[in-house]
Amino acid sequence: MYQDHIVIDGLQYSHWDRNYFKMLQASGINAVHATLVYHEDARQTMTRFAEWNSRFEQNSDLILPVYSVTDIETAKQQGKVGIFFGAQNCSPIDDEIGLISVMRRLGLLIMQLTYNNQSLLATGCYEQNDSGITRFGQQAIVEMNRVGMIIDMSHSAEQSTLEAIEISKRPICISHANPTTAHEALRNKSDTVISALTKAGGLLGFSLYPFHLPNGSDCTLNDFCTMIADCADKYGVEHLAIGSDLCLNQPQAVLEWMRNGRWSKEMDYGEGNANNSGWPDTLPWFAGKDGMENIYNGLLKHGFNDKDAGKIIGQNWFDFLESGIKPIA
Amino acid sequence: MYQDHIVIDGLQYSHWDRNYFKMLQASGINAVHATLVYHEDARQTMTRFAEWNSRFEQNSDLILPVYSVTDIETAKQQGKVGIFFGAQNCSPIDDEIGLISVMRRLGLLIMQLTYNNQSLLATGCYEQNDSGITRFGQQAIVEMNRVGMIIDMSHSAEQSTLEAIEISKRPICISHANPTTAHEALRNKSDTVISALTKAGGLLGFSLYPFHLPNGSDCTLNDFCTMIADCADKYGVEHLAIGSDLCLNQPQAVLEWMRNGRWSKEMDYGEGNANNSGWPDTLPWFAGKDGMENIYNGLLKHGFNDKDAGKIIGQNWFDFLESGIKPIA
Repeated sequence: MYQDHIVIDGLQYSHWDRNYFKMLQASGINAVHATLVYHEDARQTMTRFAEWNSRFEQNSDLILPVYSVTDIETAKQQGKVGIFFGAQNCSPIDDEIGLISVMRRLGLLIMQLTYNNQSLLATGCYEQNDSGITRFGQQAIVEMNRVGMIIDMSHSAEQSTLEAIEISKRPICISHANPTTAHEALRNKSDTVISALTKAGGLLGFSLYPFHLPNGSDCTLNDFCTMIADCADKYGVEHLAIGSDLCLNQPQAVLEWMRNGRWSKEMDYGEGNANNSGWPDTLPWFAGKDGMENIYNGLLKHGFNDKDAGKIIGQNWFDFLESGIKPIA
Repeated sequence: MYQDHIVIDGLQYSHWDRNYFKMLQASGINAVHATLVYHEDARQTMTRFAEWNSRFEQNSDLILPVYSVTDIETAKQQGKVGIFFGAQNCSPIDDEIGLISVMRRLGLLIMQLTYNNQSLLATGCYEQNDSGITRFGQQAIVEMNRVGMIIDMSHSAEQSTLEAIEISKRPICISHANPTTAHEALRNKSDTVISALTKAGGLLGFSLYPFHLPNGSDCTLNDFCTMIADCADKYGVEHLAIGSDLCLNQPQAVLEWMRNGRWSKEMDYGEGNANNSGWPDTLPWFAGKDGMENIYNGLLKHGFNDKDAGKIIGQNWFDFLESGIKPIA
């Protein structure tokens, strides 16, 4: 049964308010990886934490912060939604390796090394040339391994991703992307990458952002589950999860912040274009409160047994977090 | 016996290096309230935490961070020194109330509302006019009470201190200062303040900074213990502790940072003057590894029993922390 499983969405950036938390609670999701920042620097990241502390205070009947997987279990027991934090970029550490442990203490459990562009640590997936993991990046990976901050390469370029997998002594994740074999997109990942990722014990979260999906906003539940079933055959079910990339109720300004940050004077359209610059239409079978349960049922229909469907909708994230965020003594 | 007690020094700002940690360990001190910042803003405070994380990593055989009093017990059991953090000013929160919970999460257990000067929250003890707790200060006190961050008024002016005691729903501390009845100084506290503080359940840590002491650097152990004994009679032994204000092995530049921060182009001499602008000579019976044990023995000679001497050298700080840093649910 859906309700028996720990359900985790491995990436969202919706408009976080009380109504949305109620929707999450009703969805049966026990924990969400919430994007804390896109381009915010260290100082601004503190303000984002402060804003979340205020949400936790005002909605303590609905949500709680996740500092360890025990908090996810508590959330499930109490019928609340655990929120764990990730950064989509390495901007929270500025140029300072010491801030990795500081951010980890604040509850930043996951950090991408780059968001689309070249960063101080690695190359993003929209750059023309991928120079791989930088000198600072190599140090940062070692430190992230030490403190138990999970490396996420969702928005990184291929060579950088392969090198991160190689350098990291702990499994890494691609929290939200799909295989290019299912849909060709700069943000999706090649078989080479997913093979290396999963062979090293890593986790792939399937995205439900229409630009990453076969047939875009017309992607059916069947299309989506077929993609998962193919990957389960190729890479093993224990490496697969959901990272929906759901961005509900956000204005266009947020999309522009995600895409442009402070770095460009020209509009960047991501995987869209000038004639298609807005939020893509959400998937009707996913955006509502039954989204995760629909996936669960879809997986059962595709021949997954209850246990394996449960792994994909949350248990794999739980296990990955449990081992991934333990500091090395 | 000295060794049976939990020993806590309620304020130090020494030059923190491995040799000094060994000295602390040898002194039998189980925990030290380390000043994290004087004038550093939020961003710079993160770097101070990062520097400490590096010290914890490199000296994990000697020191550990204190996030709750359990960590102090662990330190004692393991023969290590627990480090708990305080700010001598409200600069770590910039102008943002939300940063109180963020700093608390990072381990800032104690914060002064002001350091000598007017701050955004209150008036410092060197200002000519004391306008009391500000509008922001009132909000900050409520928030510090909520998250379990202890209010420290060591460097604050009289009216501000009395108002902080009144407004705060939890006992506050003066972590390092002495009674003006023992020695007249802008940094020392009147009977009015100490009476109000202790009646409200607060804690006074006696300072060993020569400018705060009767006879300055010539203050004897006997002078010091007489001061404590007088206070025990007046205010009750359960409100008394040690906050040595020990600043060992620091260069003149650090003294100037403490006094001048970024706020003055002219030299500020604190309680010194142009002809006496350096660090005062330390007390020979305190600055070495036997300092706290000397105080313990001095207290016994002054008629304190073992239990009460133990309260003063650490148990009172332990109990005060235990209740003071628990967040209000």
